[in-house]
Amino acid sequence: MPRFEMKPIGIVESPLTDLASAPRQPDEGAPEAWLVFEPEMLEGLRNIQPGDSVIVITWLDRAHRDVLSVHPRGDRTRAPEGVFSTRAPHRPNPIGLHQTSVMAIDGTRVRVNHLEALDGTPIIDMKPALSEEIGQR
Amino acid sequence: MPRFEMKPIGIVESPLTDLASAPRQPDEGAPEAWLVFEPEMLEGLRNIQPGDSVIVITWLDRAHRDVLSVHPRGDRTRAPEGVFSTRAPHRPNPIGLHQTSVMAIDGTRVRVNHLEALDGTPIIDMKPALSEEIGQR
Repeated sequence: MPRFEMKPIGIVESPLTDLASAPRQPDEGAPEAWLVFEPEMLEGLRNIQPGDSVIVITWLDRAHRDVLSVHPRGDRTRAPEGVFSTRAPHRPNPIGLHQTSVMAIDGTRVRVNHLEALDGTPIIDMKPALSEEIGQR
Repeated sequence: MPRFEMKPIGIVESPLTDLASAPRQPDEGAPEAWLVFEPEMLEGLRNIQPGDSVIVITWLDRAHRDVLSVHPRGDRTRAPEGVFSTRAPHRPNPIGLHQTSVMAIDGTRVRVNHLEALDGTPIIDMKPALSEEIGQR
């Protein structure tokens, strides 16, 4: 099958700088972060407003792509699971999905209220969260 | 910023064969479909079971990547919106997110109960849906 080239549309600016300190799930204390979009993406952002629930899609560039099974939550006492049943970053295409809320917008900089991605992680897409994905928090 | 290469891990097998007939949202009558994974992905699928709620991530290979604003739902009487506030397929990186449920598994073939993606669409990842994404239907 043909391969596809992805072009980052922005980058994450976050106090999270190393894998060891990164929370594994968004409800485990992920900090606020800036999504810093490329200047040419401004038109695509023009309807984004504070309060919007969005899904940020990142490319987890520090993940290993040759991994097909992992120990759940990195716990080696647990049996390995196929990666497609886990949210582990390590997988053939290390795509991160992050549901979060927009707090503020400053040009192509978008502040979100929690993001479990490391500083410098490339952003590849952002979409509005659908109601059935938002659920109850 | 560096670009990244994505390797399809499988392909969608669906009765949906043309864009005009494809539903715009999963709750608008998307049909059942097969996710046909590459043989080498078998290990990654080994914990997938019927009943699992999953998010299938596709590469919408028939989308236009040079689009930054669209008329909502293709309706030209409505003002154009920035693509990052919409679920339009046309966007710089045409990534599709599809929440669905596993009905059956046959080796590397996974049957899902609805999928709004065209026949032949490349699959790039699959993850379990988190409870806050599942919500209520």
